[in-house]
Amino acid sequence: MSKPILIVGGGPAGLAAAHSLGTVGRQCVLVEKENRLGGAPILSGYAKLVPSGEWAKDAIGGMVTRVEEDDLVTVETGTTVATFDGEPGNFTAELSNGKKIETEAVILCTGFTHFDSVNKPEWGFGTYPDVVTTTQVEQMISSGDGVRCPSDGRKPKRVAILLCVGSRDRQIGREWCSKICCTVSSNLAMEIREELPDCHVYIYYMDIRTFGLYETQYYWKSQEEFKVKYIKARIAEVTSDGDQLIVKGEDTLVKRPITIPFDMVVHAIGMDPNVDNPTIADTFGIDLEQHGYVDVANRYRSMGATSRPGVFVAGSATGPETIDDSIAQGHAAAMAVLSGLRESAKSA
Amino acid sequence: MSKPILIVGGGPAGLAAAHSLGTVGRQCVLVEKENRLGGAPILSGYAKLVPSGEWAKDAIGGMVTRVEEDDLVTVETGTTVATFDGEPGNFTAELSNGKKIETEAVILCTGFTHFDSVNKPEWGFGTYPDVVTTTQVEQMISSGDGVRCPSDGRKPKRVAILLCVGSRDRQIGREWCSKICCTVSSNLAMEIREELPDCHVYIYYMDIRTFGLYETQYYWKSQEEFKVKYIKARIAEVTSDGDQLIVKGEDTLVKRPITIPFDMVVHAIGMDPNVDNPTIADTFGIDLEQHGYVDVANRYRSMGATSRPGVFVAGSATGPETIDDSIAQGHAAAMAVLSGLRESAKSA
Repeated sequence: MSKPILIVGGGPAGLAAAHSLGTVGRQCVLVEKENRLGGAPILSGYAKLVPSGEWAKDAIGGMVTRVEEDDLVTVETGTTVATFDGEPGNFTAELSNGKKIETEAVILCTGFTHFDSVNKPEWGFGTYPDVVTTTQVEQMISSGDGVRCPSDGRKPKRVAILLCVGSRDRQIGREWCSKICCTVSSNLAMEIREELPDCHVYIYYMDIRTFGLYETQYYWKSQEEFKVKYIKARIAEVTSDGDQLIVKGEDTLVKRPITIPFDMVVHAIGMDPNVDNPTIADTFGIDLEQHGYVDVANRYRSMGATSRPGVFVAGSATGPETIDDSIAQGHAAAMAVLSGLRESAKSA
Repeated sequence: MSKPILIVGGGPAGLAAAHSLGTVGRQCVLVEKENRLGGAPILSGYAKLVPSGEWAKDAIGGMVTRVEEDDLVTVETGTTVATFDGEPGNFTAELSNGKKIETEAVILCTGFTHFDSVNKPEWGFGTYPDVVTTTQVEQMISSGDGVRCPSDGRKPKRVAILLCVGSRDRQIGREWCSKICCTVSSNLAMEIREELPDCHVYIYYMDIRTFGLYETQYYWKSQEEFKVKYIKARIAEVTSDGDQLIVKGEDTLVKRPITIPFDMVVHAIGMDPNVDNPTIADTFGIDLEQHGYVDVANRYRSMGATSRPGVFVAGSATGPETIDDSIAQGHAAAMAVLSGLRESAKSA
């Protein structure tokens, strides 16, 4: 009798992997450290997702329900993997709840950690209550309360979204691009304009990276239909005149200083490597890449192979990733596990 | 006995899908219109792939061999699908070679068409022999001949790579971003500098879209280690002074005209929808999206669902896509087919 496959992390990638394994009749155990499944879109209360426009609670919530109702999937929430030993086809994992799992392979879908804006203090987060993050704006929208200034609950008339907060920034040790913040910010800007048609929304950027079809679906649409304004700028600091927030910087297209007042400033926060990655790497005996994400091999032979045979990885554990691509990688890593087991069976 | 799954297109996505189906013991028929498998990376003679650095002939060639050696995969090259009828679980496809295939489901991995630079005549392609495309430079490298000026075979001392040729360009009806050209161009620039250390390489861009970890692996590395220069510019025209090529435009950072001579100008050509898409849409009874790519549903319930049940899609058929993501989508679409069949079996 075959042993179950172990999946660590119940976000989009892990949910996809579990569904795929269930589909082909393979048992799996899905271990999630938080008390519910869904990953960042559910736990952080995202609003409408890119690119579907579906509410996160419906889109990812549906994936959660599908997995929870699958008899072949055993879910362990509020649980982590304490120890992991053995060889491909014959691993043993001890969980933090004391259970012991015999497993043939593991798929790490351990995700990322949102950048903490207090690490960019000159941009005002933590100092001024009306400097918030994209995640907080998502929560304002998904809660149904609408976009309001935290200081006094008023509807903002002028909002600035600052891109690359915790991304492409050597000063604070985060040189990577977080891939999806540009598109998410274009989307949020349109959502703000839809709720508050009198509100002016400016996006401060270095390069606009609405790649592929996001170009027309988000970047062009936000400008042409929603009148969102884009400013290529280097931001120096966010301060306050006691009344409004002041964003100071240099417009890099006209090479001159710009100082503009806003009611609300939104940090488009980046995707850090999961803060638990050093522990995860140690537990599973795998390598991390230079920035601290899980190192992953090329995809031509096997999807999501790590430095240790039998240990696979999918989604934003490997670097900044979209929800869509995390889902694809989750399914594909499930196939890679099955492919690896087929190869082992052949050579046995 | 279950019928085989039909896969149309033998590029990275189709090869991944076929391998996955073989892995779980499902027969499939892989139909490819060209006379060999491999898709654009093989047929267009790509050099070293992003992000692996592996030669296309090894990386994708290995995927081809794996599929060709799989007893469960029947390969039909030089063949297209002429007619397609039926319902999920019970389709009939007639091939151009006269064979008739009974199939439960189909995965379209029909890819893209490289933009033809003659559609951007003011940038010199077709007029000046030393104006070439990224694909031609890939071929110069993969052939082992090295990067040489087509006009006289000399080693170029100055090369300009122009980004967004056939992308983000409303004038010529191509508003989308082709997603991977920035990173591919950074990679090519480094390859040119490696072969020809005395050659100066400039990249003309609108926005640099080296998303995710490509930021450090390509954009920063190409500048810091390989001294590739990046110019944010709007290009007006490429002409010749009889001796060298002249790139004229406006530096958008300093807002002034720039006119620079080069030995070779490279068009970073975009990804058009497959020119066959209208026929493919008609044959398979599926919808295309506004730009002419295959329209694809959201990924939460099923990967790669088209507007017709039982017809799936993966890879750059759906829009500009990386090789890596095409591979992931191919595997994931294979899982979606199996998942759909499982659902049908349950409800039957």
